[in-house]
Amino acid sequence: MAAKKAIVLLSGGMDSATCLAIALHEGYVIYTLSFRYGQRHEVELECARRLADRCGARHRVVDIDLRAFGGSALTDDIEVPKERVPDSESLNNQIVEGFSNDDIPITYVPARNTIFLSFALAWAEVLAADDIFIGVNALDYSGYPDCRPEYIDAFQKMADLATKAGVEGRRRIKIHTPLIKMTKAEIVTRGLELRVDYSMTISCYDPTPGGVACGRCDACRLRLKGFSEAGAQDPVPYQQGTGRDAGST
Amino acid sequence: MAAKKAIVLLSGGMDSATCLAIALHEGYVIYTLSFRYGQRHEVELECARRLADRCGARHRVVDIDLRAFGGSALTDDIEVPKERVPDSESLNNQIVEGFSNDDIPITYVPARNTIFLSFALAWAEVLAADDIFIGVNALDYSGYPDCRPEYIDAFQKMADLATKAGVEGRRRIKIHTPLIKMTKAEIVTRGLELRVDYSMTISCYDPTPGGVACGRCDACRLRLKGFSEAGAQDPVPYQQGTGRDAGST
Repeated sequence: MAAKKAIVLLSGGMDSATCLAIALHEGYVIYTLSFRYGQRHEVELECARRLADRCGARHRVVDIDLRAFGGSALTDDIEVPKERVPDSESLNNQIVEGFSNDDIPITYVPARNTIFLSFALAWAEVLAADDIFIGVNALDYSGYPDCRPEYIDAFQKMADLATKAGVEGRRRIKIHTPLIKMTKAEIVTRGLELRVDYSMTISCYDPTPGGVACGRCDACRLRLKGFSEAGAQDPVPYQQGTGRDAGST
Repeated sequence: MAAKKAIVLLSGGMDSATCLAIALHEGYVIYTLSFRYGQRHEVELECARRLADRCGARHRVVDIDLRAFGGSALTDDIEVPKERVPDSESLNNQIVEGFSNDDIPITYVPARNTIFLSFALAWAEVLAADDIFIGVNALDYSGYPDCRPEYIDAFQKMADLATKAGVEGRRRIKIHTPLIKMTKAEIVTRGLELRVDYSMTISCYDPTPGGVACGRCDACRLRLKGFSEAGAQDPVPYQQGTGRDAGST
């Protein structure tokens, strides 16, 4: 029997790189999908391409112009907030008690995961792939509504009705979220077990043009906290005076 | 109080033009959204622009490359099927009894409405618009899974969980489908009441480069049947030997 195909949404960050490694480990033939959506941190697309090449995946980059709509510090000319301190305790409470209103940051891109998953669904249907992997994480995350388990469940139900395959009862395209309940430290630990080369990833929302992480945005701080708690060292460079030092305080 | 904003998905066909007229009639400030997705019938984008201009809507065209995935006669180099006879009786049965497997045609574009609605959702969130109109029709339609009421309901549930506004309980972005249970004849009748100028629309899947409808594809035949049953004349030109004559048999 031929190996099953899976589409992996690949941003080039540590979560999606780990998610890719998990899908590979499960034996899928991998098709990776990235988006050029006017993000400030386009260097991540280069990371995605390299990660895809390394595992022999068929890689596609879809251009979408979310920037036409505006509305996020990641795509607009709004300054990315720095030195917010992600509070693991309160984040953990949120996931238990439901979503807190207060903490959806300006870096939220409207309907981003909905758009990304919709494209993945289209490609899955064309490829006759039954599986989509997305590295969303509801625990040590930045407070986006479209990273929560109840959102993913609702997307799954919608997808079951949206596709020819689903309607014909032939098959269901399943959305896999292997990281959704993991801490950043657990993600790092699992990734290192699976030999993810994290030096090939970038998580920063606001890197230098050369791809050096700022060490101070939410994404950097969550990443550094994850490495620190996993007892590992983050192999990517950070701008001076930030990064590892900041993360370990 | 300021008028409410609505986003109207506007393909340039008769259904979306009628849907636009209904939203206007309901008093919304209109934002129209079209997609360039590698469709063979790009002349419809010009129709959409003119329809939007005419009602003073703010119009956006989003480029998406569904063609990169392939899988449909509308985007691939596959011949559009002609002379399929849409059978209103069996279509009506489908909507009552659930969806029939046999009739999803090659012109189906994978996950198209899911992608389109996802972009509309993003724009609605940025504009703080509470309403999205889409002219899907489950009765005299071409058998696409993502035109059915149960699909739209599932998209709505997903959207309620996907957006910042929904999560914050501030508001719900509602998907309106005013045409979903109308026959093509009812759509034409309602549109004519609202003074839709159908000469500005195009429905054909395979028009000439100059925008003349083939008169033989599913979309043309359903349209002609609708006009015929509404006792009205379709003002758009058709290729010789097709069109009105074919539709009235």
